[in-house]
Amino acid sequence: MQGQAQQQAYDRGITIFSPDGRLYQVEYAREAVKRGTASIGIRTPEGVVLAADKRSRSPLMEPTSVEKIHKADDHIGIASAGHVADARQLIDFARRQAQINQLRYGEPIGIETLTKEITDHIQQYTQVGGARPFGVALLIAGVESGTPRLYETDPSGTPYEWKAVSIGANRGDLQEYLEESYTDELSLDEGVELALKAIASTNDDELAPEGVDVAKVPVEEPVFEELSNDHVESHLAELDLLPSEDEEGDEAA
Amino acid sequence: MQGQAQQQAYDRGITIFSPDGRLYQVEYAREAVKRGTASIGIRTPEGVVLAADKRSRSPLMEPTSVEKIHKADDHIGIASAGHVADARQLIDFARRQAQINQLRYGEPIGIETLTKEITDHIQQYTQVGGARPFGVALLIAGVESGTPRLYETDPSGTPYEWKAVSIGANRGDLQEYLEESYTDELSLDEGVELALKAIASTNDDELAPEGVDVAKVPVEEPVFEELSNDHVESHLAELDLLPSEDEEGDEAA
Amino acid sequence: MQGQAQQQAYDRGITIFSPDGRLYQVEYAREAVKRGTASIGIRTPEGVVLAADKRSRSPLMEPTSVEKIHKADDHIGIASAGHVADARQLIDFARRQAQINQLRYGEPIGIETLTKEITDHIQQYTQVGGARPFGVALLIAGVESGTPRLYETDPSGTPYEWKAVSIGANRGDLQEYLEESYTDELSLDEGVELALKAIASTNDDELAPEGVDVAKVPVEEPVFEELSNDHVESHLAELDLLPSEDEEGDEAA
Amino acid sequence: MQGQAQQQAYDRGITIFSPDGRLYQVEYAREAVKRGTASIGIRTPEGVVLAADKRSRSPLMEPTSVEKIHKADDHIGIASAGHVADARQLIDFARRQAQINQLRYGEPIGIETLTKEITDHIQQYTQVGGARPFGVALLIAGVESGTPRLYETDPSGTPYEWKAVSIGANRGDLQEYLEESYTDELSLDEGVELALKAIASTNDDELAPEGVDVAKVPVEEPVFEELSNDHVESHLAELDLLPSEDEEGDEAA
Amino acid sequence: MQGQAQQQAYDRGITIFSPDGRLYQVEYAREAVKRGTASIGIRTPEGVVLAADKRSRSPLMEPTSVEKIHKADDHIGIASAGHVADARQLIDFARRQAQINQLRYGEPIGIETLTKEITDHIQQYTQVGGARPFGVALLIAGVESGTPRLYETDPSGTPYEWKAVSIGANRGDLQEYLEESYTDELSLDEGVELALKAIASTNDDELAPEGVDVAKVPVEEPVFEELSNDHVESHLAELDLLPSEDEEGDEAA
Amino acid sequence: MQGQAQQQAYDRGITIFSPDGRLYQVEYAREAVKRGTASIGIRTPEGVVLAADKRSRSPLMEPTSVEKIHKADDHIGIASAGHVADARQLIDFARRQAQINQLRYGEPIGIETLTKEITDHIQQYTQVGGARPFGVALLIAGVESGTPRLYETDPSGTPYEWKAVSIGANRGDLQEYLEESYTDELSLDEGVELALKAIASTNDDELAPEGVDVAKVPVEEPVFEELSNDHVESHLAELDLLPSEDEEGDEAA
Amino acid sequence: MQGQAQQQAYDRGITIFSPDGRLYQVEYAREAVKRGTASIGIRTPEGVVLAADKRSRSPLMEPTSVEKIHKADDHIGIASAGHVADARQLIDFARRQAQINQLRYGEPIGIETLTKEITDHIQQYTQVGGARPFGVALLIAGVESGTPRLYETDPSGTPYEWKAVSIGANRGDLQEYLEESYTDELSLDEGVELALKAIASTNDDELAPEGVDVAKVPVEEPVFEELSNDHVESHLAELDLLPSEDEEGDEAA
Repeated sequence: MQGQAQQQAYDRGITIFSPDGRLYQVEYAREAVKRGTASIGIRTPEGVVLAADKRSRSPLMEPTSVEKIHKADDHIGIASAGHVADARQLIDFARRQAQINQLRYGEPIGIETLTKEITDHIQQYTQVGGARPFGVALLIAGVESGTPRLYETDPSGTPYEWKAVSIGANRGDLQEYLEESYTDELSLDEGVELALKAIASTNDDELAPEGVDVAKVPVEEPVFEELSNDHVESHLAELDLLPSEDEEGDEAA
Repeated sequence: MQGQAQQQAYDRGITIFSPDGRLYQVEYAREAVKRGTASIGIRTPEGVVLAADKRSRSPLMEPTSVEKIHKADDHIGIASAGHVADARQLIDFARRQAQINQLRYGEPIGIETLTKEITDHIQQYTQVGGARPFGVALLIAGVESGTPRLYETDPSGTPYEWKAVSIGANRGDLQEYLEESYTDELSLDEGVELALKAIASTNDDELAPEGVDVAKVPVEEPVFEELSNDHVESHLAELDLLPSEDEEGDEAA
Repeated sequence: MQGQAQQQAYDRGITIFSPDGRLYQVEYAREAVKRGTASIGIRTPEGVVLAADKRSRSPLMEPTSVEKIHKADDHIGIASAGHVADARQLIDFARRQAQINQLRYGEPIGIETLTKEITDHIQQYTQVGGARPFGVALLIAGVESGTPRLYETDPSGTPYEWKAVSIGANRGDLQEYLEESYTDELSLDEGVELALKAIASTNDDELAPEGVDVAKVPVEEPVFEELSNDHVESHLAELDLLPSEDEEGDEAA
Repeated sequence: MQGQAQQQAYDRGITIFSPDGRLYQVEYAREAVKRGTASIGIRTPEGVVLAADKRSRSPLMEPTSVEKIHKADDHIGIASAGHVADARQLIDFARRQAQINQLRYGEPIGIETLTKEITDHIQQYTQVGGARPFGVALLIAGVESGTPRLYETDPSGTPYEWKAVSIGANRGDLQEYLEESYTDELSLDEGVELALKAIASTNDDELAPEGVDVAKVPVEEPVFEELSNDHVESHLAELDLLPSEDEEGDEAA
Repeated sequence: MQGQAQQQAYDRGITIFSPDGRLYQVEYAREAVKRGTASIGIRTPEGVVLAADKRSRSPLMEPTSVEKIHKADDHIGIASAGHVADARQLIDFARRQAQINQLRYGEPIGIETLTKEITDHIQQYTQVGGARPFGVALLIAGVESGTPRLYETDPSGTPYEWKAVSIGANRGDLQEYLEESYTDELSLDEGVELALKAIASTNDDELAPEGVDVAKVPVEEPVFEELSNDHVESHLAELDLLPSEDEEGDEAA
Repeated sequence: MQGQAQQQAYDRGITIFSPDGRLYQVEYAREAVKRGTASIGIRTPEGVVLAADKRSRSPLMEPTSVEKIHKADDHIGIASAGHVADARQLIDFARRQAQINQLRYGEPIGIETLTKEITDHIQQYTQVGGARPFGVALLIAGVESGTPRLYETDPSGTPYEWKAVSIGANRGDLQEYLEESYTDELSLDEGVELALKAIASTNDDELAPEGVDVAKVPVEEPVFEELSNDHVESHLAELDLLPSEDEEGDEAA
Repeated sequence: MQGQAQQQAYDRGITIFSPDGRLYQVEYAREAVKRGTASIGIRTPEGVVLAADKRSRSPLMEPTSVEKIHKADDHIGIASAGHVADARQLIDFARRQAQINQLRYGEPIGIETLTKEITDHIQQYTQVGGARPFGVALLIAGVESGTPRLYETDPSGTPYEWKAVSIGANRGDLQEYLEESYTDELSLDEGVELALKAIASTNDDELAPEGVDVAKVPVEEPVFEELSNDHVESHLAELDLLPSEDEEGDEAA
């Protein structure tokens, strides 16, 4: 284990290796991811689900302005956790890659292909000097040739494929929750509910409809779709996760 | 909590992550925003209001020269708080983007679109080396397809949409004031008055007409309009916020 | 209040924010301005006046070579205070901008337009790495469509419009003097005399004609004009500010 | 032997020599290689074998997403150990070089040629400033004109040719194991089994089929081929290396 | 007054402002000027004189090789003090500017124009990073439209016009000497003699003809002309400044 | 002699001079050369010989992969010592220069010409910033117009011509051995044997055929030729330098 | 006199001024010159002589490979002292300048012109960042329009013209020797002999023919010519400077 003084030497200036082979700037960027509220992805045989905790910091802020789930292409959604402005850069990058693929090959970009183009882009910021790494993790979810796919990217530029995964705050607890509750035979609706329950689990088992974004890409009709507030509310009601009247009153503006 | 010495290590040279995932240069740029006098935005069903505290530092300075609210396009106004010279750069950038949009697509730029182009621009200055972040926050207010919109940009390059918001000095107090007083059914005039009352609330409930800029973009005729000094004075008189004779005499040149 | 050691951390290398949101290099550039002798601008209904304290350091130096007031365009004069070589760069920049405006639009450049082009240029040197800020403040004075205008630029790149203002050494005292003595109904000659009295006020109420530059742009015929030594001397004589015989003898070569 | 303080001096900023002629950044990159799980290459007269330890960190992660063996060309496979995102950059580089060779010369790229192009690329990152070295080692395995070849690249950009070699964690133990067990007359299947036994040797002599990637390029038909999970499982069963029921149950999702 | 440690902080790397608004690198470059032997310029109604102390360091060195006065154009001479190699760069720059002016406008360059082009060039090296300031001061002397002009440039890039001035070693004493002895009615020959007496005054009132360069640009025929050794010797003899026999014998080779 | 702290100041960042006029980065690169096993060159009237100690570090490593002697052109061989990846860069550079010479002038490149092009290339890396010096020395051996030539390059970029020379580990002992044993009348075979005896002299007078590379360029037919293992073995047998049975058994795989 | 710590501050990174106006990197480069063996230039009415001490460090090194005198053009020779690889760069630069002059103006380059082009080139490396100064001094000797010329360049980029001069080790003693022995009426042969005696004077009055390079450019036929070993030997014999038999035997190989 290294001391504080030693550590400082490796995180000034450009991203370089520490004596034990670590890239501190990349590890600190992972801390920036943990500072963001959680996003969750669930892959089911019927499609993929993305859900994001976006509890507004103020009743006067438009909940829709805290974007955490974005459409990258007709068949692909991306959820983020971490430094918001960095996430927006990567999502713009993803959209351009999807458009280029469509123009060049006349077909929608593959989920894995898109993930790898994004992670290559991220990696460059960890090796070449003059810029810092991206302080954000992404979940890239979509349907490709009838198969649902769910990928994670981290600040080092490594892609991972998951059945179910969380990024951002409370990853340890949420991942444990998912491992206990996930099965391979979930319906798409059950996937949505697992995601909502997981997020609520770190929030006293309560969740306001405005405090969460949910989206899905079904296998049957592989089109990215964000769930309406009413739709989310009915899920939450069914799961008995809606906040008590008092508390919701506090948050309403 | 980190000590002073540790902190110093992360704010020299380019913008990099600290061990807990923060970007100190961006946080210090937020301090530059707090050093500026407050600007306030209010969204009502009838349009958006911008108001800016610009108490002149000298009776010989032209009040109009302390610009804090600018027209970005016919239908969009921008108020700023923080480093004045940085604000001017971003407003020039906004105007160019509005012109390009008009030339390219033959239609006025959307409020959200413009906000995102500005925040992308701001983000670049927080990731790529060789420059410091912008030390300024903006309120971007306008009417788009009949809908009033109000956005905030911060030094990290994150956009937020608000019903009512303040930037700059006393944000804590002002935001609390707005949360208590804002309702969704304000008329545009009531929006102007709420903004004036909020600014006066941090100034012993007094406000000279020359000490505040007010502008609006009404839904009915979505054209950016700065209120005349007389107009502001009649509002202030109605609200009983005009300074007592003695004090005003001091400020007159 | 911060200690010395802390402060040092923020003024090495490129211009970056300190933890309290300040740009030390810009503030130090302001100190360079204070090291320069004072320049004063006075706006009257009949035109604008610039005056600059240029007491020569040696009887063998040509007083005209210590240029502190320059013609930027036919209708615009610029006075400076601070780092002389930096001032010359900005004045060259101003002249080029005036010429470009004339070529491009077939009309003289506006005073406000010119000021903003200069302050945008200055701001770049405070944000982008690889150069230091300009250590100079300018007074930009002219007549535009029959209206006299008087602007100040500072090392941060912020423009201010004034009725009467001083830059450089003794700003506190001089600004106080101006606030006490300025009225909106000065004639142009009274403006010249106010400027001379102000400069003399920080110099034992004496001023040699060679020790001051005076220029004006009258509204009636908006052409930049430097006052001859004789003209200045008659003003000084009338104001009883000429040095006593003994002292003047010392300075003659 | 040098002390800690001395060492720090040579690993800040760009890659430079230490007084004893070492490149610390390259040596630290070698530590990054050791932090990765092991990959093994075995050359037999019948072809080359690659095997990689990829024990998944979570039951919800797709084992296939932890890619450690990749096809570089029809006749070439590459296994990696170390920083995953860096490995992906080098493998993309390898694929482009293989394609360029095919386009330019109309024939598949040689194994040695490809290795040298990769190591030249790696070396640049150790000599020219503005970037860090690659934190990854590769095993490049293929068949060239009927001859099996097996190369290693390290972070300094040096190529080595091997009969049998391991990279990544436990290299000392694994290399010793290979030296004891390797003979020049292995069949391809025996090569696969030697690789599996070696990896299991550092893991309590147990290995789940999902926890290992195996690929081969046979001399007879020189085409890169990844072994199916079933195929791997039958090998492991034959070698009595399958985990006991209990343990496997834990890892199943 | 600042301490040593404080000062060090501002003179590493690029030229930046110190907390009291000074540019240490520029001030240190002025010290480089003081390390050079003196050059003197005298302006008389009949023309301008340049004289430079160039006492050879070795009897084997060609006195002509220690160039301190150069012809910049037919009508302009330049004397230097300080870092010799830097002086040569600026003199080459001056010659190119003179040629360009001749080519572009068909007339000889003005003395003031040339001075300003040189000082603009010098200023760039004090503001933009990646280079140090010029460690040299110049005296630019010539006749322009029948008027003799004499300018000084310093390492900050500031131009000064003088009647009589010295740069380099002993500036304080020499300038005092000039102030006491200079009158506006000197003949050109008296100007030469004043310059020689001034230089000799800091050297025990002795001066070898080989130890001084003298040049002039007369108003009557404005052509730069270096005085021959014989001519200088006759001046020195007349002024009784020639070294005693013994001493001259020592210097002969 | 300087202390450790002083020394550190001169080896950070780019290659600069120390107060005693040394280039530490170049001297440290020489240490990298000493860390490599020895290479030896012998010039005889019948041709030039290169020999390189390449004792394999592992019985599983292909001896041929530790390349220390390379063909640069038909008539030129190059042996190296030091940082292997750097050596490969320089040898590629040498081959390109040889090809360019052939294309441009239609004749083989001269040995001295090639050496100077390589040393010019090396020197650039010691003077211009942004890269470290090459950590390798080369022996460049060939026959040019019937004359055998043998050159050394070092990390400073200085070329030396030799009758017999060693680079890398044990240079002191080996050079002494060569000085004692070398005569101007060696046959080419005697040159080979001198090289082998020298290398063996630092290795208990034993040498396995796989542990040494030998090559020659004969005057009679000036073509670079690497000696086969059998050929080397017969030389070693004749010189009674073959390892005893036991030891060789250890190294065989 | 400054302490060690103070000094360190000015020799890191690019070449900047110290508080007393010195350029430490240039002064350290002068130390690199002193580390080289001496070169001597003598100008006589009959031509110029260059001589260089090149005592070989090893009997196996080809004396001719320690080049210290080079032909720059038919009529110009250059001797060097200091960092050998840097000298080679400057000599290549000189040759290119000579060729360009011939091509452009159809005549041989002047000695002074060539010297100034070289010193301008050297100066750039002392002012612009990103490279270190050249650690070498040159003697440039030739005949121009029937006149012999002898110039020295130093690491600051200053040119000096000499009658007789030494660079490199023992400059103090050698220069003193030259000052005592040089007269303006030397024949070319006497010039050669003075140079040999001077070099021998710092070497126990002995000099092996292989240990010295001598070249001359006679006025009568201004062609650079290196003296043969025999020619040098006969000079040395005549001067009784040949080493005693024993010593020479030691150096023979």
